[in-house]
Amino acid sequence: MRFGLLGAGRIGRIHGLNVAARADAQLVALSDASAEAAASLAQASGAKVASTEAILADGGIDAVVICTPTDTHADLIEAAVTAGKAVFCEKPVDLDAGRIRRCLEVVSKSGKPLMIGFNRRFDPNFAALEGRLRAGEAGAIEIVSVISRDPGPPPVEYVKRSGGLFRDMMIHDFDIARFLLAEEPVEVFALGSALVDPAIGQAGDVDTAAVLMRTASGRIAQISNSRRATYGYDQRIEVHGSKGMLRAGNIHETTVEIATGAGFRADPVQNFFLERYAAAYRAELDAFVSACRDKRAPSPSGLDGLKAQILADAATESRRTGKPVAVSLESL
Amino acid sequence: MRFGLLGAGRIGRIHGLNVAARADAQLVALSDASAEAAASLAQASGAKVASTEAILADGGIDAVVICTPTDTHADLIEAAVTAGKAVFCEKPVDLDAGRIRRCLEVVSKSGKPLMIGFNRRFDPNFAALEGRLRAGEAGAIEIVSVISRDPGPPPVEYVKRSGGLFRDMMIHDFDIARFLLAEEPVEVFALGSALVDPAIGQAGDVDTAAVLMRTASGRIAQISNSRRATYGYDQRIEVHGSKGMLRAGNIHETTVEIATGAGFRADPVQNFFLERYAAAYRAELDAFVSACRDKRAPSPSGLDGLKAQILADAATESRRTGKPVAVSLESL
Amino acid sequence: MRFGLLGAGRIGRIHGLNVAARADAQLVALSDASAEAAASLAQASGAKVASTEAILADGGIDAVVICTPTDTHADLIEAAVTAGKAVFCEKPVDLDAGRIRRCLEVVSKSGKPLMIGFNRRFDPNFAALEGRLRAGEAGAIEIVSVISRDPGPPPVEYVKRSGGLFRDMMIHDFDIARFLLAEEPVEVFALGSALVDPAIGQAGDVDTAAVLMRTASGRIAQISNSRRATYGYDQRIEVHGSKGMLRAGNIHETTVEIATGAGFRADPVQNFFLERYAAAYRAELDAFVSACRDKRAPSPSGLDGLKAQILADAATESRRTGKPVAVSLESL
Amino acid sequence: MRFGLLGAGRIGRIHGLNVAARADAQLVALSDASAEAAASLAQASGAKVASTEAILADGGIDAVVICTPTDTHADLIEAAVTAGKAVFCEKPVDLDAGRIRRCLEVVSKSGKPLMIGFNRRFDPNFAALEGRLRAGEAGAIEIVSVISRDPGPPPVEYVKRSGGLFRDMMIHDFDIARFLLAEEPVEVFALGSALVDPAIGQAGDVDTAAVLMRTASGRIAQISNSRRATYGYDQRIEVHGSKGMLRAGNIHETTVEIATGAGFRADPVQNFFLERYAAAYRAELDAFVSACRDKRAPSPSGLDGLKAQILADAATESRRTGKPVAVSLESL
Repeated sequence: MRFGLLGAGRIGRIHGLNVAARADAQLVALSDASAEAAASLAQASGAKVASTEAILADGGIDAVVICTPTDTHADLIEAAVTAGKAVFCEKPVDLDAGRIRRCLEVVSKSGKPLMIGFNRRFDPNFAALEGRLRAGEAGAIEIVSVISRDPGPPPVEYVKRSGGLFRDMMIHDFDIARFLLAEEPVEVFALGSALVDPAIGQAGDVDTAAVLMRTASGRIAQISNSRRATYGYDQRIEVHGSKGMLRAGNIHETTVEIATGAGFRADPVQNFFLERYAAAYRAELDAFVSACRDKRAPSPSGLDGLKAQILADAATESRRTGKPVAVSLESL
Repeated sequence: MRFGLLGAGRIGRIHGLNVAARADAQLVALSDASAEAAASLAQASGAKVASTEAILADGGIDAVVICTPTDTHADLIEAAVTAGKAVFCEKPVDLDAGRIRRCLEVVSKSGKPLMIGFNRRFDPNFAALEGRLRAGEAGAIEIVSVISRDPGPPPVEYVKRSGGLFRDMMIHDFDIARFLLAEEPVEVFALGSALVDPAIGQAGDVDTAAVLMRTASGRIAQISNSRRATYGYDQRIEVHGSKGMLRAGNIHETTVEIATGAGFRADPVQNFFLERYAAAYRAELDAFVSACRDKRAPSPSGLDGLKAQILADAATESRRTGKPVAVSLESL
Repeated sequence: MRFGLLGAGRIGRIHGLNVAARADAQLVALSDASAEAAASLAQASGAKVASTEAILADGGIDAVVICTPTDTHADLIEAAVTAGKAVFCEKPVDLDAGRIRRCLEVVSKSGKPLMIGFNRRFDPNFAALEGRLRAGEAGAIEIVSVISRDPGPPPVEYVKRSGGLFRDMMIHDFDIARFLLAEEPVEVFALGSALVDPAIGQAGDVDTAAVLMRTASGRIAQISNSRRATYGYDQRIEVHGSKGMLRAGNIHETTVEIATGAGFRADPVQNFFLERYAAAYRAELDAFVSACRDKRAPSPSGLDGLKAQILADAATESRRTGKPVAVSLESL
Repeated sequence: MRFGLLGAGRIGRIHGLNVAARADAQLVALSDASAEAAASLAQASGAKVASTEAILADGGIDAVVICTPTDTHADLIEAAVTAGKAVFCEKPVDLDAGRIRRCLEVVSKSGKPLMIGFNRRFDPNFAALEGRLRAGEAGAIEIVSVISRDPGPPPVEYVKRSGGLFRDMMIHDFDIARFLLAEEPVEVFALGSALVDPAIGQAGDVDTAAVLMRTASGRIAQISNSRRATYGYDQRIEVHGSKGMLRAGNIHETTVEIATGAGFRADPVQNFFLERYAAAYRAELDAFVSACRDKRAPSPSGLDGLKAQILADAATESRRTGKPVAVSLESL
């Protein structure tokens, strides 16, 4: 399978090198607004630098990975599928749900596969948990809890363009909650505060937030987010069910522990998302390649991207209005 | 200090024996509607059986512990403080906040101390966590999470008279959340479902619930409850703050672990609340005796009982209406 | 069952209060060389103070608990069983194996039960592990590992009279190793050093030691001891078998954990043996009372005491000579 | 740096691919007795297949990695250093300490660097522990404990040629013990049994073993080995010192945990040494390349290989004779 890569920034570099390292795939060409970033990754991966247009026009390229800025995703997806490429696109498709819907219609008409980069589904720990949940180990699902805390807040300039915490950060947790609940949420209630950095509050956003959701049958999902955790990148999920509880925790930097009069001290948890989710990035690419090869629809799909966006929009509105917001995802 | 005990049921027995075991206190007399229960505890504790009226009229008794059914608490508190006794009363004061307010006025006029049995504040783990939180180890408080799951649901007949999950079970968690937040909640949003036992739903109650609360400064509290956990009595708290995270977990039945091809298996957690909180019951009695002896107001106070009840009422209303409910505890 | 207590020091006080707290036993009388210690425990327990001779002569006393200094144990056991009492004696019977043998002959002739206070067998964690080992959870036993580290070294004056680390401290671990191995050791090799306190070395003893033992069928036991652990009283056992590994660990002071940039820090482990083994002391008394009541031979027996002493002697000799020492416990 | 690889079996493939993946190194050529193995790795790595002689004669090759059968190591090391190559050789140099000495003389005369593949020193967990030990976190070293258990025993045919458990398996633990003790052992006592597979015993070897060692200053090392652990590849180290205890544990397959009435069950530990030590293999190659580039002597050195072999020989003799064996490593 021959790949083109659009966007050679931090996450583009990860995907590009993962493609290049595969025996069954080849990174043919890549584009980036920064000539330097493009050249650097070209050297590391063996791909050539090209324009986005040239990549999309290249009939020898089967698939593109889109890692450009968010506001270009929908246009590039449309252009790529129209050009006959399978597409793997980083989340989100767009910050506007209406724009996503139109994009998905274009994808649908093209008949080409589209996969969205909700990497956490592919974390070996979370994926194992989900598999065991599906196998019934915890019985009927009752309460899904997701905790997600970044090591530190992004710059306020980033925050201003991000669509807000619910769309920028918690969107991953909305997707994981859907993944685990196995039933669509019908209601979203959100709280949010700027406790970490007052400048984030002044920019109209929050850095500390919690959401409650329920499904039609009464399953409950709790999500909490913070833009700062002193002890590392905190990523935990827990599912309580009729037969038991399944949970997946963090990965400490090492297994070393020191015991003294001050107690037993283990390492902080892995601090950086690219390290924490390195295996997940490889596994999601595996899933994309396998789905394309076997002509199966890849998952998470564009529709999964739309649904997570709708939940993020609902949480944003709930936080603004102080009221729960009903959503209707089943009919999509 | 000479004690009378009103109510010699399960929890009354615990408190009665704890009083009797103290070097600085004596259990003089006890009453119970069941002559059998009264006689059994009298024999075990060395106290005499008497009527409630006789106990309240006995000038040689300094303090009473009230462990009778909930609907008698407020009347007995009023009678006891009017009779000049210090009072330790099991939660709740009453299922009706208005009745609690009137009762607290009587207490206030009497000048006698009243302590409410929110035992979890005295659990050595939770108390240590709170002490370290107050000492600043986690920095400024941002997110308080409380998980409380009973081993199994009570009989539906009990549920019908209980005031509902929020007043009967989650009231402990409202108190713990207030204890940890160190700032009053101003808003409560609740979700609840009957997923464990449909009969609980038919009785108009829920067995699976979650609450979000926020304080004026933006601190967030999450609570989740289930009436059933297959793996024991699940009682966890976690506080995320600007400097770090403090958490306190469950106590496993033993420290034994078996490792086989199926993995590493530790014991379930302690299954029974009287075992899990045995040390807490002793410690809360310590606190009551110390406060009375040193003429300090005991804590948690009647007002703490009222505030927890108001939060439970708000959650009950929120669950019913589907809307968040504002509360105003600061002014009480 | 009516008890007399000989010796009201630290451990005598534990046993005396445990007897007094039982519904099925009564602490009638106690003796101690210190009138003050005797009076204090008499007041706390409700027993009367008497002479050792009077206690042994009192036909109304069924059983005695011996908690006097080690060098009086054998004489008192002999006197007590000859006087028709059941005897619970703190370890060791004597520092001299020959003296123990003669004492056990007297016990044997008397027909009265003798139980030795190897409390660790009754620790709920270790007892549960042993029960599961016997039930076959770990399969055939291959390697038994025992780690025992005291919080701090005793005074050198104590060390000089103690019989040395192997007889004073590791004797508990020899007993636990036998308890777990379920087959007698046939060979002992010991290493020891004075690394904690040079004065202990100058007194001819060691404070850091390790032992290897093997059984006839090839099972291996490892024991290591230190007289000092900064992080609490470290008591761990692990059994590796054909089907898996069973282990039992320490009990932390609380379940509280703090996570910061420095990592995740749990409490030190319980520091004091009377706290760590409080439940074990109660349970061993249970076992003694039950055995006496049901006319079963109590366990651990005097012979268990002798065997542990022989292993301690062998380790002491091995450390002195630098050679492994053969032992023959099966024939005893 | 241009590499040749001698031996393209399981471990050779790991090293070969690790060399090929480096930006600062190139795998130029490889040899193997099996044309198939050679061709397979050549394709995966981009190296050419050549004869061992051709590789050693190729002036464009700076370094060789030796992963051939043990009985060829010493000859190949000598040939390679004589041909001017830097050498990284899998452990052991030889099963005969005398042969190792002669080989190291040849290496010494050549002036070329030789590093031995004791990979565990480079495990991120063990390396971090050692670094913190050196930094003094545990204070003065008193007891070093090493537990090493393989998932399952090798075929008896392998066992017969292996030199025995102490030389084949425990040699890693002798090296780790030396690494952690920071002082040479002066005495070795070993026990061993065939409990896992009677055929191993019939072949004259053991599958379950334990060793005690002491250093001149009295530090103690405990090692235990089993050829079979049902719960994975068990690799643990613990160092007890004057200031505290440092330990490093196993890595579970995932962080997922299930809680039910049967308890809390975590995954088995990673089962396969190539997975468990994948990071260690990369890190030891890093260390070799860095040492060569900076013209520092690589570590662990050939002398480290000799010392571990002498300890393994001493343990083998101790097990055979039943007596402790003195060793003198300081003078080497």
